[in-house]
Amino acid sequence: MAVNLQIPSESEIFPVPGIEIGVAEAGIRKAGRRDLTVFRLAPGTSVAGVFTRNRFRAAPVQVCEAHLAAGKQIAALVINTGNANAGTGADGMQRCNDTCAALARLLDVQADQILPFSTGVILEPLPVDRLVAGLPAAIANLGPNNWFSAAHGIMTTDTQPKIASVRRDIGGKTVTFTGISKGAGMIRPNMATMLGFLATDAGIAPELLKRMAREIADVSFNRITVDGDTSTNDSFIIMASGQSGLRVDSANDAAYAELHQALSAAAAELAQKIVRDAEGATKFMTIRVEEAGTTEEALKVAYAVAHSPLVKTAFYASDPNLGRILAAVGYAGIDDLDTAKLRLWLDDVLVATAGGRNPEYREEDGQRVMKKAEILVRIALGRGSVTDTVYTCDFSHDYVSINADYRS
Amino acid sequence: MAVNLQIPSESEIFPVPGIEIGVAEAGIRKAGRRDLTVFRLAPGTSVAGVFTRNRFRAAPVQVCEAHLAAGKQIAALVINTGNANAGTGADGMQRCNDTCAALARLLDVQADQILPFSTGVILEPLPVDRLVAGLPAAIANLGPNNWFSAAHGIMTTDTQPKIASVRRDIGGKTVTFTGISKGAGMIRPNMATMLGFLATDAGIAPELLKRMAREIADVSFNRITVDGDTSTNDSFIIMASGQSGLRVDSANDAAYAELHQALSAAAAELAQKIVRDAEGATKFMTIRVEEAGTTEEALKVAYAVAHSPLVKTAFYASDPNLGRILAAVGYAGIDDLDTAKLRLWLDDVLVATAGGRNPEYREEDGQRVMKKAEILVRIALGRGSVTDTVYTCDFSHDYVSINADYRS
Repeated sequence: MAVNLQIPSESEIFPVPGIEIGVAEAGIRKAGRRDLTVFRLAPGTSVAGVFTRNRFRAAPVQVCEAHLAAGKQIAALVINTGNANAGTGADGMQRCNDTCAALARLLDVQADQILPFSTGVILEPLPVDRLVAGLPAAIANLGPNNWFSAAHGIMTTDTQPKIASVRRDIGGKTVTFTGISKGAGMIRPNMATMLGFLATDAGIAPELLKRMAREIADVSFNRITVDGDTSTNDSFIIMASGQSGLRVDSANDAAYAELHQALSAAAAELAQKIVRDAEGATKFMTIRVEEAGTTEEALKVAYAVAHSPLVKTAFYASDPNLGRILAAVGYAGIDDLDTAKLRLWLDDVLVATAGGRNPEYREEDGQRVMKKAEILVRIALGRGSVTDTVYTCDFSHDYVSINADYRS
Repeated sequence: MAVNLQIPSESEIFPVPGIEIGVAEAGIRKAGRRDLTVFRLAPGTSVAGVFTRNRFRAAPVQVCEAHLAAGKQIAALVINTGNANAGTGADGMQRCNDTCAALARLLDVQADQILPFSTGVILEPLPVDRLVAGLPAAIANLGPNNWFSAAHGIMTTDTQPKIASVRRDIGGKTVTFTGISKGAGMIRPNMATMLGFLATDAGIAPELLKRMAREIADVSFNRITVDGDTSTNDSFIIMASGQSGLRVDSANDAAYAELHQALSAAAAELAQKIVRDAEGATKFMTIRVEEAGTTEEALKVAYAVAHSPLVKTAFYASDPNLGRILAAVGYAGIDDLDTAKLRLWLDDVLVATAGGRNPEYREEDGQRVMKKAEILVRIALGRGSVTDTVYTCDFSHDYVSINADYRS
């Protein structure tokens, strides 16, 4: 069902020196599934994270924030699927801390050198015993070439693993960027997505990496939406091992811009792959708002269109019932919007202008674009010079089936 | 498919002295359908309206506002289905004005004594010739007993007519309240709903009625949502003919409170009937937020829950996957929400408390409530003393089918 989602072959995935991964079957929710993943990071690796703004932040999100704030060398990440450990109160915090302590003992580090991540059902106790019992198998599996296995290991309702991997020559060094992500529903990241892990062997000063992680999230994971439901567990992590020999300590360094661009491109690819594999998706839609006065109003309009169930079902049906897009723009919350200045295009087809239908617009032109699997919806507001873009998908019977059946 | 939607028999519908209705088949979109309705109002009838805040307000909404502002005696309403005359620019305004002029000629009044309403597809030209050609038949049909027919005449994807009718003794007079509404999708009224018309033979001073209409919309049509899509055509109209002999000129009058309450109850019934007959609905859900600090934050939380596709599909499946409700509360936009103070009930079952699952909660208790057709979701925020309530429905395969097929 995924829309033009490229899955690299194992030989196209570049390992990242300094990063090892181990995956195991811990039977957390169901038997016979890879549901437990451990990342081990070489000493000297910088780590920065961006996390959900949902007020019901999951226990692992709270623990991640605390451990990153403590400022020690992060030694490992532990990720389980099958249970989100969210909406679980003080008991959930305890189970999360127990997980970190168990992995720390096995790796001979401190508990606050571990970052924990959970994804799955909310409001149910984490089966910490089964998780901890699975850790030795994950550790035994540690190696540099397990990215493909890890991409499977973090899936829930995803139908395909999501991996981005590229090598670039920057500052005279060959630098690797490899990452994985997951998520298919409850996707409207607010600071990060369900789970995204991006590693590089560039060296990046911790404070700089922290700022870069926020900026990169804002052009990648913070620009996608499936259903408008911001998860309790969104986490996006960048790891920089430094083992390529490239080192960037400040935004003034020569290699900074190129490094930022390479990380942003890899993050955008991981984020868009989530939309391509969204629950029930049959279309990949780019909503580009131009001529906005501010980023905030561009995003208000883009998200109103991207979240409208009526717009999303029309795209599913390939039906150019495009008045629904105007209605969504109209209720997006820009009180002084001058509808006479607005123009709407589907790809290159000008649909609406001067507050109404373009006189030259023909239904068959709209129909031609609607039938495609990838569609650009372009909305010019006539208010300023800001452009911003959100990526989303259509709304199909399968979304309802998947979410009516999930968990049951 | 409608959820516990009561349809009164013809004998249970009380005509409103001073109000006549005529319905015709004008073939506006499809042949053989009642799609044109005219209300004729006796001289002395006060009329007030509340209209959509969508920036793409339809031509008839703009004309209604202008005609009400002009302050002349409103003589008639004309309502067509099959075409919304929205997103139609200057040409749409012309066609709307032509409609008013044609009806005014036939009734021997001025064009600005007519209020026009349209509902149906957006972004397509109103077939004004067919509409005008149908007016004589609608006028010939004028009579006090056509409420049932009018309720059918304003339907689009509605499966059932929506009518509320009651007689009350107020201030020593027998006063009648009868109204109709329509709408099943693109429902998240912001000031009013798709179409609601409520008539009484109480007499109400025009300025007072105007204020009452806004207040009444805020406890009825402005508290329902189906899909979060605020329509371009939402209109709610109250007509007060005065023919019962009861007259209210100020909020200090003895009968005011009782009259307000009766109108509010009738409007709430009409609004809730829209949710009961919402596209694909199988459940009617009341989202009540208690202990909020302000009305605004109560509504933020209520609408976040009511619009979450994940919450709505879980209710469709009768699956007590209730962490989805916590996630929606968490992203509702209350930045300083203390999740430890929040409590969540399904009917009388306490599901969550102290930031996590109630230790006494048993899955079978949640399951029992989820299987019902009418469910109360009660959320206490622990922040203040404001309560507010929103009415909504679940999200089913049929919603997708109806909106993927509508228009095609």
